[in-house]
Amino acid sequence: MEHKLEDTIALLARTPAALDALLRGLPEMWTEVGEGVGTWSVSTVVAHLIHAEHDDWMPRATVILQSGETLPFPPFPRDGYVRFKQVKTLGQLLDDFAFIRTKNLSDLRALNLTSEDLNRRGRHPAFGPVTLSQLLATWAAHDLTHLHQISRIMAHQYREAVGPWSRFLGVMQCAGHSSAA
Amino acid sequence: MEHKLEDTIALLARTPAALDALLRGLPEMWTEVGEGVGTWSVSTVVAHLIHAEHDDWMPRATVILQSGETLPFPPFPRDGYVRFKQVKTLGQLLDDFAFIRTKNLSDLRALNLTSEDLNRRGRHPAFGPVTLSQLLATWAAHDLTHLHQISRIMAHQYREAVGPWSRFLGVMQCAGHSSAA
Repeated sequence: MEHKLEDTIALLARTPAALDALLRGLPEMWTEVGEGVGTWSVSTVVAHLIHAEHDDWMPRATVILQSGETLPFPPFPRDGYVRFKQVKTLGQLLDDFAFIRTKNLSDLRALNLTSEDLNRRGRHPAFGPVTLSQLLATWAAHDLTHLHQISRIMAHQYREAVGPWSRFLGVMQCAGHSSAA
Repeated sequence: MEHKLEDTIALLARTPAALDALLRGLPEMWTEVGEGVGTWSVSTVVAHLIHAEHDDWMPRATVILQSGETLPFPPFPRDGYVRFKQVKTLGQLLDDFAFIRTKNLSDLRALNLTSEDLNRRGRHPAFGPVTLSQLLATWAAHDLTHLHQISRIMAHQYREAVGPWSRFLGVMQCAGHSSAA
């Protein structure tokens, strides 16, 4: 089950620039509209990624290293993005995401984690024991699940525009929803 | 059904840099492995995007403008990526994609398409009449379906590594497949 931490860091280091290149300056019809009532826009997804940088990955890694399984992870509410989104533009959110990700990767590298560290276990409030290795791999996979979601949200805006092609575009058939816990 | 061509161009112009920022220099376990026997790696997806730049979007737009519905679009075989992939590295493929996309968008802008042009119809070999507007919207949505696929292929490599988190990651539940015709 163990993964190579360098593979995870290589991906985590690239996501902010990839989202920046894709999203900065795009017309708001792509970035400020969701998939229906109560769903997230692309900007909201970026705010959620910032929230997770602050309250999810590194704080949970610290809990594992300091307390092991004795303390469950603190809760990570799905609507916690609100305090990071505020009234910021998407450009500001992309800046915030790049800044906090760089800081977190610097902190992660400074831990100089060993194989033994990666096998240490913590306690997830919903599904019990998890390893530090699994948590860090999930950090990278969480970027991918939201890249997947962003491409789906954007494609949704063109469901009508593509006419008969809609049934041939995989992204328009996707019912997958991101809900990393 | 009509869409704003500038929205489409804004996205098409950003995809090569977004893929470059995400993929260039990543370890090959992310980019050279598919989702099982006979499936595409990330590198193959990029080669397919290059193939579509050469043989799909602008050639079909030209058929619509020159021949309307009298000629069906030429075929676009799914394995046509092979002649663009060859033995190229992912870095070379990303360069090729950026180059041909820039050229195609320059050619598209030079057409100075009017609303009347966008409503002109061509004939898809499988599902009949389509408008130029629908073709160009599909060009952008096709980028998104493959960004969606790329995130899914990459996440697949971490199915084991994330442990119990796999069932909470939307991208790992996705069975959507890209098959733009």
